[in-house]
Amino acid sequence: MPPRRTPAGSRTPVTLQTVADRVGVSTMTVSNVIHGRGKVGAETRARVKEAVRVTGYVPNMAARRLAGVAGTRLGLLYPDVRSPFLTEVLLAALASANAVGAQLVVREGRAATLEHAEKLVVEAIEGGAEGLLLVPPYAELLAGSETFLRLGIPSTAIAGAAPLHGMQTLRIDNRGAADQLTSHLLQAGHHRIAFITGPMDHGDSQQRLLGFQDAMHRAALPIDPASVRAGRFCFQSGCEAAEALLAASSRPTAIVASNDDMALGVLWVAQRAGLRLPDDLSVVAFDDTAASRRAWPPLTVIAQPMASMTDAAVAALINTLSGKAELPSGEWVLPYELLVRTSSAPPSRR
Amino acid sequence: MPPRRTPAGSRTPVTLQTVADRVGVSTMTVSNVIHGRGKVGAETRARVKEAVRVTGYVPNMAARRLAGVAGTRLGLLYPDVRSPFLTEVLLAALASANAVGAQLVVREGRAATLEHAEKLVVEAIEGGAEGLLLVPPYAELLAGSETFLRLGIPSTAIAGAAPLHGMQTLRIDNRGAADQLTSHLLQAGHHRIAFITGPMDHGDSQQRLLGFQDAMHRAALPIDPASVRAGRFCFQSGCEAAEALLAASSRPTAIVASNDDMALGVLWVAQRAGLRLPDDLSVVAFDDTAASRRAWPPLTVIAQPMASMTDAAVAALINTLSGKAELPSGEWVLPYELLVRTSSAPPSRR
Repeated sequence: MPPRRTPAGSRTPVTLQTVADRVGVSTMTVSNVIHGRGKVGAETRARVKEAVRVTGYVPNMAARRLAGVAGTRLGLLYPDVRSPFLTEVLLAALASANAVGAQLVVREGRAATLEHAEKLVVEAIEGGAEGLLLVPPYAELLAGSETFLRLGIPSTAIAGAAPLHGMQTLRIDNRGAADQLTSHLLQAGHHRIAFITGPMDHGDSQQRLLGFQDAMHRAALPIDPASVRAGRFCFQSGCEAAEALLAASSRPTAIVASNDDMALGVLWVAQRAGLRLPDDLSVVAFDDTAASRRAWPPLTVIAQPMASMTDAAVAALINTLSGKAELPSGEWVLPYELLVRTSSAPPSRR
Repeated sequence: MPPRRTPAGSRTPVTLQTVADRVGVSTMTVSNVIHGRGKVGAETRARVKEAVRVTGYVPNMAARRLAGVAGTRLGLLYPDVRSPFLTEVLLAALASANAVGAQLVVREGRAATLEHAEKLVVEAIEGGAEGLLLVPPYAELLAGSETFLRLGIPSTAIAGAAPLHGMQTLRIDNRGAADQLTSHLLQAGHHRIAFITGPMDHGDSQQRLLGFQDAMHRAALPIDPASVRAGRFCFQSGCEAAEALLAASSRPTAIVASNDDMALGVLWVAQRAGLRLPDDLSVVAFDDTAASRRAWPPLTVIAQPMASMTDAAVAALINTLSGKAELPSGEWVLPYELLVRTSSAPPSRR
């Protein structure tokens, strides 16, 4: 039988003070024992625990206030797109919030419209969120929204592509990263390099395409328009692009995918077609999600410093909320990393 | 420049009533407009929105109470293990909570101890959680804990292996599922079938091993002790088990892995070793995570009805919290499904 809640009003409420009075210690000591914090002697600790047990004390919002940062609630607006990259952002945000003892209130959005985004912010605030972590597309949608600005909730945007009005932004240099990724293939001896874009209404998709073009132009290699395929950042769109690219009369020897998930689609189609990887085809991508490391062959990727980004975002929000600092404005561009794995190699001589 | 919050006390607080008075409508109408619910005429809607803008109204906890279920907070205790399966549980819980308009308060745990689990429950309650969604190992740790029972918070456990005291449990028949998965390989003509276990202190790991043994015994096939390898539900442990199994003098023609992530490790090691899959080796697993569908070859798996489980768990909690029903006690065993994909085939004749 599951336990039932004590009906409200059926007894005198037991507070932190009730427990403290019973033991003859301060409420802070009781709170410390409950949270396993601070220096409390073993005997006092045992007496507090016994008093908590006897009184049936249930910690409440008053205790939450005593606990300081531990009760801070940060809202994360998360789109209902099942993207491995956004999942990693979610997990990283969870870990960062956990590391400082804050609660993460997650609200999943269903539509990529400004009206829906504003509704999600209102719901997050109603749910107790005191600061917001925003990811694409909600960060971009809310940037500059009058309603959002008026709500005045401290906000940081993670993994976007440009500075955004009304929030701190943390991102990498997507253009420079795509340039380096393409240059890695050029240096290995590839000339027929294809590119799969993300959705072109995303700033980061545009920047990555520009970086690919930069590297090809610098190498004085023409870009065949048929070798640039439009993707949607999803596995399926990577499969579709790969089918078109591998069916071409002049097949590419390497493919740059604008994210991991599309690259996994390329690996899938190439292996089903019987190609030997990486000899017959090199594949490189963006993000370094867990799936990219567990694929065979493991993907060469540009890694975004996800943990550093969410740690910095959470720290900035907590410092602002505790009055220690104003939320840093503008953008913070963090370093990325090229991780060379088995999916890229010199083109086969055959 | 990021906006700054209005310092507390610097002006008369603007409430839902302030907005309602200004427009001459009920607070419920204002709430409906803010939440995009109910039937409100276009003109009234516009006037309310204008009044919200002019007064600078920020929705607060009072509005939350008006909103009913929309403000309900459900806590999810989530271990900091980066398991694709638990990530899918997290995403499914998020989608289920979202579908009924509830907030999910996620608390990430660092240790698999009862003391830590109890601390997480207290923190979730302090964070406003009114009901709890529990996953392994926290469900098992808290079952029967006196402290947990006394807190009296309605709780459901998802994806465990057995009925648990003090909470509703939702799960599949792991033993029957492992039996069916193994039988699928036997029917395809395999005789040398190896098995990789999960951590043996998990109930579901024990049940899956029993199901494998059931099927082998029924087929009157002996189980070579060296063909049962201990895994830890992680990719790395799947790699280690596969290396040992594939190095054996009498190599298995098929491997049953107790979860997807270990199966991905088997695919990785087998392909690196140059084996052709599924001709040289069939691999089957549990969970049907996204990664299992995107691997090449796509994995034959037992799928747990994750969305149904989290939907049912959230609905039971919401109904209990709104006083519509008591939390159903005991356990609810849901149907599983065998999904046959390309990773399993008859053994090669070579």
